[in-house]
Amino acid sequence: MEKVNIAEKFEKFSDHWNPRIVGELNGQQVKLARLKGEFIWHSHEDEDEMFYIVKGTLKIEFRDRMVELKENEFFIVPRGVEHRPIAEQEVQVMLFEPASTQHTGKEKHELTNNRQERL
Amino acid sequence: MEKVNIAEKFEKFSDHWNPRIVGELNGQQVKLARLKGEFIWHSHEDEDEMFYIVKGTLKIEFRDRMVELKENEFFIVPRGVEHRPIAEQEVQVMLFEPASTQHTGKEKHELTNNRQERL
Repeated sequence: MEKVNIAEKFEKFSDHWNPRIVGELNGQQVKLARLKGEFIWHSHEDEDEMFYIVKGTLKIEFRDRMVELKENEFFIVPRGVEHRPIAEQEVQVMLFEPASTQHTGKEKHELTNNRQERL
Repeated sequence: MEKVNIAEKFEKFSDHWNPRIVGELNGQQVKLARLKGEFIWHSHEDEDEMFYIVKGTLKIEFRDRMVELKENEFFIVPRGVEHRPIAEQEVQVMLFEPASTQHTGKEKHELTNNRQERL
C-alpha cells in the first residue's frame, strides 16, 4: 500500500517498448512505457488494452483507420482487434491490461518482452 | 472504439461524489469523479480500487494512517481495507474498479449511488 508517483517512475528508465509494472489490482496490471517509433501489428485474443497518454502524442493504427491520442486522452483497444502503435516523437503511456496479456500477442519479434520488470 | 478526452468529460458534470463511467475493459470500469468534502468510511469486500489524481490533492484516511495524493499520483486500496476519501478542495479523480463495485460497499448513506451514469 504505497502511492505511486508517475513522473518519478518514468525517471527510472529510458528505453522504449519495454513496459514496467507499477501496480496490480483485480488481476489487472498498471504499466508505464516509453514509446518511440513504430511497433508491430498485433492483437490480444482475450484481453482489452487501455492506452492512457501521460505525455506526447500517440497514433494507433487499425486496419481501417488511425486514431491520434494526446495527453490525458485514453483509448481502449478491444480484444482481438489488430493494432499498431506509432510514436513519431517519444510518448509516455500508462497501460491497463490483464496480467495474462502477452506483449505482442501471438506475434514474436525482437521487441517482444514478456518478462516485464516491476518498478 | 472512441477515444476519451478526460478534460472534456469533466466539463460535462459538476456534482460531487457521483462517479461517471467513461470506459469498460475486462470486467473493469474506468470512472471520473469530482470529490469535495469528506466521504464516509467504507470498504469493498471483493474489489481493489485505484484512485488516480487528475487535479487537486486527495487525502485517503485509513484506520492506521493517512495518505496524501497529488496530481499524477495513484493509490490502490486493496479489497477489504476500510478507507475514507477527504478532499479539502475539489479534486478530480479517475477510478479503476470492477464493474461489481458498490459505491459505498455495504454501507448505505445519502451519498450512496449505485446507478452510475455513462458519459
